[in-house]
Amino acid sequence: MTDTPTEDLAVADSRFLKALVSLIRADDRNGTRDGWSDERMLRDFVLTKEDRKRIPIVGNPDPDTVTRMELFHKAAALSAERETGVMADLMTKISHEGFGRLVLIGGKLCVYSRHLRDIHRFGFPSRAAIDEAGEKVVAEIIETIKAAPDLAKS
Amino acid sequence: MTDTPTEDLAVADSRFLKALVSLIRADDRNGTRDGWSDERMLRDFVLTKEDRKRIPIVGNPDPDTVTRMELFHKAAALSAERETGVMADLMTKISHEGFGRLVLIGGKLCVYSRHLRDIHRFGFPSRAAIDEAGEKVVAEIIETIKAAPDLAKS
Repeated sequence: MTDTPTEDLAVADSRFLKALVSLIRADDRNGTRDGWSDERMLRDFVLTKEDRKRIPIVGNPDPDTVTRMELFHKAAALSAERETGVMADLMTKISHEGFGRLVLIGGKLCVYSRHLRDIHRFGFPSRAAIDEAGEKVVAEIIETIKAAPDLAKS
Repeated sequence: MTDTPTEDLAVADSRFLKALVSLIRADDRNGTRDGWSDERMLRDFVLTKEDRKRIPIVGNPDPDTVTRMELFHKAAALSAERETGVMADLMTKISHEGFGRLVLIGGKLCVYSRHLRDIHRFGFPSRAAIDEAGEKVVAEIIETIKAAPDLAKS
């Protein structure tokens, strides 16, 4: 992250961040975030080094943190779907210590798999960093689907 | 199930039931079932029509029922592994109403997928029926792996 701008990336300038914000808004069933700006919707995804250090990594991860981690990966699946037409389903397995596994499944293909650790501190130093990490996941999903498109669509 | 024998299938005569019992024993961490016969280990998997009707299908499924449903599918994965060499990881997503999805993932291949409903009443009329249903899952896993062995081993 050498060239993170002092003025952080605007949501409108990032396909990934737009997808993520749309999913957060869809998840906000009680409307407690009505009227929030796109940037404000991402506030809890941005953690400074100091924020991260303050979060204890014992016990169960905060359910809101788990939700954010899932929404991040759903946004990657959604962005990849727009290019590939493959809709992937998220499944997670999280142990009480914050370890686990997350997969995205499209048809018979596991289009993305990640072993989870340290979920308690899920977050990014900036919106630009969310975008960068998200686009990396999107690229991996697309590459995996392109290697076995028939299975992904089966 | 037209020819379920009055004397039900012995565990020793079924590859699938043997795998299932070995997993139940491994899961019995407190040793509360030490000394139980193989057949007794499967008692909770066998439900008569009347047993099934007595189980309410509202609210959360009993955690023990979910565990049995998972062990059943893990036994199928284990039996298939012995033929294919592919070790598959179980992941489940269960909503509070007892609906959900269960998958087995080997490498990048989703070797088995099942949409779940009515988990509350997971069970079989006899041990022979467990064996039959289990072998059906085993056959499906093996067929899926044989169609894309490289992905399953990746």
